[in-house]
Amino acid sequence: MNTFFDAKSVVVVGVSDSPLNLGRTMVLNLLEFRYTGTIYVVGPKGGAFLGHKIYPRVKDIPEPVELAAILVPAAVVPEVLRECGEKGIRRVVLESGGFRELGPDRIGLEEEVLGVLEQYGMRMIGPNGLGIMNRWNGLAVPFMPFKAEAAPGRVAVIAQSGGVGAMMINMLATENLGFSKFASIGNKLDVNETDLVDYLIGDEQTGVIYCYLEGITEGRRLMEIAGLSSKPIVIHKSNLGQSGAMIARSHSASLSSDDQVVDAAFCQCGVMRSREQRETLEIIKGFSLPRMRGNRLAIIARSGGHAVLAADAAEENGFLLPPFPLEVIKEVREHSRAKVIEFHNPLDLGDLFDLSLYRTLAEMTLSREDIDGVIFIHNYQGDMDVDASHRLIASLGEFVEEIRKPIGICVFTTDDELRLNRKATRVPLFTDPKEAVRALARNRDFGRRHILPFAVSRPEQMDRHRVRLELEAALPGMLLPERLASILTAYGIPLIVWQLAKDESEAMHHARSLGFPVVLKTAHPEVIHKSDAGGVVLEISDEKAAGAAYLSLKRLGPRVLVQKMSKPGLEWLVGGRQDPNFGPVVVVGLGGIYVEVFRETAIRIAPIDYEEAHRMVDECRGSVLLRGVRGQSPLDLQALLEVIVRVSWLLSDFPEIRELDLNPVRLFSAGCLALDWRAVLAAGS
Amino acid sequence: MNTFFDAKSVVVVGVSDSPLNLGRTMVLNLLEFRYTGTIYVVGPKGGAFLGHKIYPRVKDIPEPVELAAILVPAAVVPEVLRECGEKGIRRVVLESGGFRELGPDRIGLEEEVLGVLEQYGMRMIGPNGLGIMNRWNGLAVPFMPFKAEAAPGRVAVIAQSGGVGAMMINMLATENLGFSKFASIGNKLDVNETDLVDYLIGDEQTGVIYCYLEGITEGRRLMEIAGLSSKPIVIHKSNLGQSGAMIARSHSASLSSDDQVVDAAFCQCGVMRSREQRETLEIIKGFSLPRMRGNRLAIIARSGGHAVLAADAAEENGFLLPPFPLEVIKEVREHSRAKVIEFHNPLDLGDLFDLSLYRTLAEMTLSREDIDGVIFIHNYQGDMDVDASHRLIASLGEFVEEIRKPIGICVFTTDDELRLNRKATRVPLFTDPKEAVRALARNRDFGRRHILPFAVSRPEQMDRHRVRLELEAALPGMLLPERLASILTAYGIPLIVWQLAKDESEAMHHARSLGFPVVLKTAHPEVIHKSDAGGVVLEISDEKAAGAAYLSLKRLGPRVLVQKMSKPGLEWLVGGRQDPNFGPVVVVGLGGIYVEVFRETAIRIAPIDYEEAHRMVDECRGSVLLRGVRGQSPLDLQALLEVIVRVSWLLSDFPEIRELDLNPVRLFSAGCLALDWRAVLAAGS
Repeated sequence: MNTFFDAKSVVVVGVSDSPLNLGRTMVLNLLEFRYTGTIYVVGPKGGAFLGHKIYPRVKDIPEPVELAAILVPAAVVPEVLRECGEKGIRRVVLESGGFRELGPDRIGLEEEVLGVLEQYGMRMIGPNGLGIMNRWNGLAVPFMPFKAEAAPGRVAVIAQSGGVGAMMINMLATENLGFSKFASIGNKLDVNETDLVDYLIGDEQTGVIYCYLEGITEGRRLMEIAGLSSKPIVIHKSNLGQSGAMIARSHSASLSSDDQVVDAAFCQCGVMRSREQRETLEIIKGFSLPRMRGNRLAIIARSGGHAVLAADAAEENGFLLPPFPLEVIKEVREHSRAKVIEFHNPLDLGDLFDLSLYRTLAEMTLSREDIDGVIFIHNYQGDMDVDASHRLIASLGEFVEEIRKPIGICVFTTDDELRLNRKATRVPLFTDPKEAVRALARNRDFGRRHILPFAVSRPEQMDRHRVRLELEAALPGMLLPERLASILTAYGIPLIVWQLAKDESEAMHHARSLGFPVVLKTAHPEVIHKSDAGGVVLEISDEKAAGAAYLSLKRLGPRVLVQKMSKPGLEWLVGGRQDPNFGPVVVVGLGGIYVEVFRETAIRIAPIDYEEAHRMVDECRGSVLLRGVRGQSPLDLQALLEVIVRVSWLLSDFPEIRELDLNPVRLFSAGCLALDWRAVLAAGS
Repeated sequence: MNTFFDAKSVVVVGVSDSPLNLGRTMVLNLLEFRYTGTIYVVGPKGGAFLGHKIYPRVKDIPEPVELAAILVPAAVVPEVLRECGEKGIRRVVLESGGFRELGPDRIGLEEEVLGVLEQYGMRMIGPNGLGIMNRWNGLAVPFMPFKAEAAPGRVAVIAQSGGVGAMMINMLATENLGFSKFASIGNKLDVNETDLVDYLIGDEQTGVIYCYLEGITEGRRLMEIAGLSSKPIVIHKSNLGQSGAMIARSHSASLSSDDQVVDAAFCQCGVMRSREQRETLEIIKGFSLPRMRGNRLAIIARSGGHAVLAADAAEENGFLLPPFPLEVIKEVREHSRAKVIEFHNPLDLGDLFDLSLYRTLAEMTLSREDIDGVIFIHNYQGDMDVDASHRLIASLGEFVEEIRKPIGICVFTTDDELRLNRKATRVPLFTDPKEAVRALARNRDFGRRHILPFAVSRPEQMDRHRVRLELEAALPGMLLPERLASILTAYGIPLIVWQLAKDESEAMHHARSLGFPVVLKTAHPEVIHKSDAGGVVLEISDEKAAGAAYLSLKRLGPRVLVQKMSKPGLEWLVGGRQDPNFGPVVVVGLGGIYVEVFRETAIRIAPIDYEEAHRMVDECRGSVLLRGVRGQSPLDLQALLEVIVRVSWLLSDFPEIRELDLNPVRLFSAGCLALDWRAVLAAGS
């Protein structure tokens, strides 16, 4: 991937002398960012642009070239790519639109492009993207004009929308944070976000990786790579709903994935998710400070109101506010004009007007071993304290870099003054105490993140061979209940005692042998909402009732399941499905009447271990009911965890099981039983 | 109040020739904002400042003066106030600190100040505040220097922290929104936020009222006034937790009020609450646009990624996105270079490069009757489209003012360009699609707000006289259960059948006459957690068990309640208390085991009507259980509503009842019964 960003020579293909020609902008960006390599220019009409000869064809370039940045009509893209291939170019940034984003009839063109890439062993970023930039060597080929205002920095930007990516570059410039690399990935026909994240984790110039994504490709690989990253990865995943999904297809042609799965996946691999631009910037600003290694925060503010806002935010974000050390208090007392300060943390500087003392106080505080970070809030107005404020803020910035602990510096002043201050320091400035506190909290949380390993140990007694045989014998679609029961049993998932009956006499026989009361339910799997369809008869207490029940079920088909009636217990649902981006996911929630009450489930990318299954259960709001209520004994949590873990493995081992639902799983003080089960087998498996 | 802000003459008291003197800044602000009235300057040392003679004493001023702005040491404040009173000044802005915020020993000084105010019929803003400003006549007396960058505008700023207020002025200047009036209320010794809100609702120059508050004074009056306001009121209430409360005391000496009550109170009177500065600004920007009168939104974006972000936000905020009208589609098709646009709402302008067409599209769309508002997202980079973009944004701003419907204009470009655009239009510009969509949503919601009237009709059969007699006979503290039962019965709240027994034989007698099974519980109200203390014996099924139960309870005292054992039902808790700021509040939640499961209650300022009680119940997550589960018949919602409404009236009619808890109130398919009740009577009532 570094041959994209470190290319020593680049050819811009698609330059003409029309003022609307966007290829010219690509060349202008290379000049604006002072690209350190060699620039070649290609356009069918020839001529020259800014001193560069325009070669009619790529093959006309006299020297070898490492990278091609192409913006030509879609129809001629395969031909241009072949020329690049023949020329020995192995990296291409394709900025042309006119592919899958315009509809399914362009997929053939994309396949042709893939064929050319394969033929020549080329890698490509795009099509339908804005291009790439490396701020450190000036390689900048977007077809929109950028200014070199954003300095070289540590933030890498990957964006599935050129517009959103460009906006982030502007925001980083405004904050004086700068960027390292930029890539607009467009349709991700070849290189995708996961490839780029993988590369940037190893990139020395990058400290924080930011992605804006509308859909996720290779989600599982992304998780594996991100889970091992020591660099923070912040992903703004949008495209949550239906209207968003519609434009996404026409925009950069990605499918959206189920949002709850995205949340779970990101959490499991330590990726921070942001939900809007400002939140993204806040997180990035937090990571532009040294790492916060503990939870003890000191708040120092010139304005009591801002101190209150910071204290509110500190409490919301779980920070501890230790008392201020005595020597700090002494220092303040000696310099306070009216001696009216009260010494709490937050510390309100009140009528302390000596700004040079502010730095001393911040330094004394942050230098202490029992303080992990500081929020320093400064405000000034008009012509008062202007120079002293500039000096204070610049010196606080220097101190942060020296001591390697974070200060969230908030400055409240006019817009012009804020800009001046931003230009004078390399640490981020905040304009809201809450923003500063949250940014430090995200910084702190990164060190505490809990990465779920993919290699969890497999429970014993799961008979894969038997499940394989059952699935091979099955037809696609809803699995027969007796076959699914065999599969579940093979994986050690306990079911209520059941028997299959094909006619009335078998049903009566099974009912007698199981012992009343029993339940009869249709065994025809296509009846999905069995209860609503009258496909279940509960509490059958004698043979007469059993006969009547059979007759009422018969209209749905002759086959019925006869089940022992279960004793009461707390009902859960355990299930899962195959997510198109992240693979198997397992879902847990309270079942029965509580499904409607809570409308909440916990979800994880499978497989998981017992510890994580326990976390899932704890996440469910009704989990306190497990303790036993009204003097009843506690319920058998471990039995529930077994079911969750085994379901997670079943879905991981057999991705042809598209969906699985055990609802309810009834939990007792000892053990649990699934009372009903259904699953869908993939077609063609 | 207008004599504060429209004063034709002002005296600044406390000016000296020291460069650190803050009185000079007050005079400088009057000059900076070009105050249209007459300025007088007072300072004990005399002399002159910027051409104004410094009079040694207020009485030395030869003409009458309307307003005094005072910044002198706290100790001499009463004397200076008396001089002002003698001079005939009836409005004072007191900016001195050194009062209650320094501790309880200064309360005497505050009382002396109040005495002087009363003596002369003066009104005062402060002490310990930053001062006031009227942007329209240049009256500006803060002791921090402001610049006249913030233009005259429609936003009024009331702040309990000078620093936070100043910051809002800076933010409004940055956004080119301007302000109308500003008041830093400090310790609110005389004039408080409610007085100012009341005044600003009637102020012609003010369109939106913003308050930053750390504590609320006269909450109930604020609700009454706000509930009648046709102007949006946005309150940022901070000081949520303990550490915040500590600094608040030392900062401007206000008590914080329970945060959930604040939420309920604001919601009931249509005040919008914000929780951080940026959110505040977002709401204010939304109200700086014409009112959005419906829910149908069109999104037009130059970048597909921003369109996706806007669509996500539209869905989250409940907007409808109707299809684009055919004539708009036709117009775009005719001007689209590559003819590759797909016509969804959101509309991605894709490769449509003609910016003059953008305005046409926005106008055509917003002019339609079936569209209530537009989000228009524009982005440009570098030197491309600069002039055309300025023209586009300025003309969209003009169109908004002309058609009186809102366009949330988002502009993505560099910081410098954004500033230029902001200066060229009077409508707010947004820098995030989500921000723009949320701002329009708050604007829309203001028209839909549901104001709870204070004058709700009183239910029948509530015997106030009987309650009055019971309360007069009671001692402060926990009410005796039989007395509270009598009170509740007088207000029509149904209780389980009960009898008071003073010894074992009475207990046995009552148990027999009520009929087994019964419950015995201690009738000694100081036993608060009766169950934990072994003060309750359930399911007593015969006389022998009743005798044993009495003996076990006797150690807590001889008096017991004998209650009929209730049949099963769904348990709720209904109660309330007197909030120090907002008066009586009523609280509802699921009871019994669900208290722990849900940990949620609904809360309202009392009294409320049946409709609102119904909303409270619906707010409780477990309210679906009312429908009856597993084939049981639905529960008697109306009976529960009766209890809620009557409790709300009981607490409103008798504020000496400090706290009341009915837990549980057991609900059946017909009727409900309170099974346990407790209440605290105020001391000295």
